[in-house]
Amino acid sequence: MPIENFFNLAERGRGVERELAPGITATVYPGEHAMVSIVRFEPNTRGTLHHHPEEQWGFCQEGSGKRIQGDLTVDVGPGDFWRTPGDLPHTMEAGAEGLVVVDVFAPPRKAYEKAGSGFGTEDA
Amino acid sequence: MPIENFFNLAERGRGVERELAPGITATVYPGEHAMVSIVRFEPNTRGTLHHHPEEQWGFCQEGSGKRIQGDLTVDVGPGDFWRTPGDLPHTMEAGAEGLVVVDVFAPPRKAYEKAGSGFGTEDA
Repeated sequence: MPIENFFNLAERGRGVERELAPGITATVYPGEHAMVSIVRFEPNTRGTLHHHPEEQWGFCQEGSGKRIQGDLTVDVGPGDFWRTPGDLPHTMEAGAEGLVVVDVFAPPRKAYEKAGSGFGTEDA
Repeated sequence: MPIENFFNLAERGRGVERELAPGITATVYPGEHAMVSIVRFEPNTRGTLHHHPEEQWGFCQEGSGKRIQGDLTVDVGPGDFWRTPGDLPHTMEAGAEGLVVVDVFAPPRKAYEKAGSGFGTEDA
């Protein structure tokens, strides 16, 4: 029996499932003031550059890749985390072994409250 | 050279350092709409039950322990995460190997914006 408000990174089906781009899927857990999105990148995939007004914090859980935000491109691996201020264009690129990232949005992103595809926002 | 807005869980000195209780320390990164707190528990330590109006999401990064919130006591390990609604009394107890938890508060907790000791809140 699932326990209310307790989850696991590997779990599927209790969050909102989205396909952000080919080979990039997310399971989204909406909260009241923050929203959690577990994002899985297949090896060597890359998202599209996008932006949104919500602040975002990202945590690299598995694998490695590059975080692109503003003028920066930064190599990231497990234990690395980063803050993305609202409205700053950003994306990620997975390395050869793929990548799992925990993203936290505050406030929650409306576009991610329902299943679907895409980053739910205009391109940067 | 540190890169602005890029951090690592093991890093010390770029966040606000707090001692939450004997054997429980935190490095806090204030954001605009959310605040990240990396909490390290020595083996077999336990926090005091407390509450605050901010929503909280916790992610077990290393070790294992018990999450206590409301009427629940739940065993947690790496990959487990949980949502704690505002004002719900909660605490954690580390297992024999200690525990590292990433806590995210939305909105940010004012009491954690400065160095010091304690959970920064009244007891439950």
